Amino acid sequence: MQALLLLTVSLSVLFSVLAQTPHPCKAPPYLEGKLVVLFPEGHTTVFEQFAYDAVEQRIRVVASGKESTHNVFVDRLMFFRERFYYDINYHNQSCVKTPFSADFVPIEIPVDAHHKAQFVLGSLSAPAQGLLVNDWVGSVPKMKANYSMSFTEFGCIPITTLYNVEKMGHFLSSFFDIVIGLENPDIFIPPSFCTSAKLEQRKDGKVVDFFTSLL
Amino acid sequence: MQALLLLTVSLSVLFSVLAQTPHPCKAPPYLEGKLVVLFPEGHTTVFEQFAYDAVEQRIRVVASGKESTHNVFVDRLMFFRERFYYDINYHNQSCVKTPFSADFVPIEIPVDAHHKAQFVLGSLSAPAQGLLVNDWVGSVPKMKANYSMSFTEFGCIPITTLYNVEKMGHFLSSFFDIVIGLENPDIFIPPSFCTSAKLEQRKDGKVVDFFTSLL
Repeated sequence: MQALLLLTVSLSVLFSVLAQTPHPCKAPPYLEGKLVVLFPEGHTTVFEQFAYDAVEQRIRVVASGKESTHNVFVDRLMFFRERFYYDINYHNQSCVKTPFSADFVPIEIPVDAHHKAQFVLGSLSAPAQGLLVNDWVGSVPKMKANYSMSFTEFGCIPITTLYNVEKMGHFLSSFFDIVIGLENPDIFIPPSFCTSAKLEQRKDGKVVDFFTSLL
Repeated sequence: MQALLLLTVSLSVLFSVLAQTPHPCKAPPYLEGKLVVLFPEGHTTVFEQFAYDAVEQRIRVVASGKESTHNVFVDRLMFFRERFYYDINYHNQSCVKTPFSADFVPIEIPVDAHHKAQFVLGSLSAPAQGLLVNDWVGSVPKMKANYSMSFTEFGCIPITTLYNVEKMGHFLSSFFDIVIGLENPDIFIPPSFCTSAKLEQRKDGKVVDFFTSLL
């Protein structure tokens, strides 16, 4: 009886300690939302609306912004598993299908990330006035990148991610208006005028990785 | 009877329209919290813990940071109405009392600010995962400054303020861990070794305004 009590007490102490420490987490597999991405050296700021499917590794992103002097507008449907993306132009009813080999980077805190801080945006003094957020740091050697990320404590929703990529610079993404789930799963089905598109290499010869694939 | 009904309907339509538009607001008069201030051109980042009393126009701020190559540590108790502040040094039990004439800038959205956007940090898809925030822009001609501010929709709690001051540059403040009320109102009472301090002009001759008073 005493042994059982001791075990129960030990386990509850262990669980309460584990529960106190924030753990790396994965965002929900289906998300929609918006983000503002600041590309290296602040030359380009892009406003994006996105739909995210971590199960099938698909991202649809409608991005608009300014790159140096010219405007950028991209409606891109990316299939990371199938390793190609469509650039869709409803105005011309045209579609460009491009191969790419970027790894899918799920919206998550990598398991080897280090917890930096927990803080409240706003205030927890009254309901609906504050948000509990964790800051994480780490590195992805394969990408030659260091990162710093803020995700909500509850729900593992991204707030900001900052990647510092070797020889490229800083990519700062600020997420907002995130909705869990997909309002319209059709968003991952290419429009009918895309079915005849053939795979074409990028004309600019750029090597596309996860970071530049959204540009 | 019909006239009364019409009046009721008109008023409820008017109120519902007014209720839909976010209005400039004042933060609660007593706050404690932390902020990170990025001073112009990113040369100085200061971490501050503050207590704020908008009724008596008092601010206590303990700031630490790095200015170019040297570390900065300040424990400052500011009386905006009385127009002086104490720099307190518990280690030496010393206190410097300095006159200043900066206007008190309450934590609020000025009444003539323009509403720019409403957005959600995180997600409102589930409880405790998101925070509704308003973005405001405007200018303070007296300070020769433009500003952009994010405050929570509920409670009017500051999230970020960005002031662009003519001939000075950008002051970016990010607030967090805000608590409504004062845990310890004693924080505005100077320590006993301050009572003998006499008013002294700043040795560096700097003109102190609201922005530089915290540096």
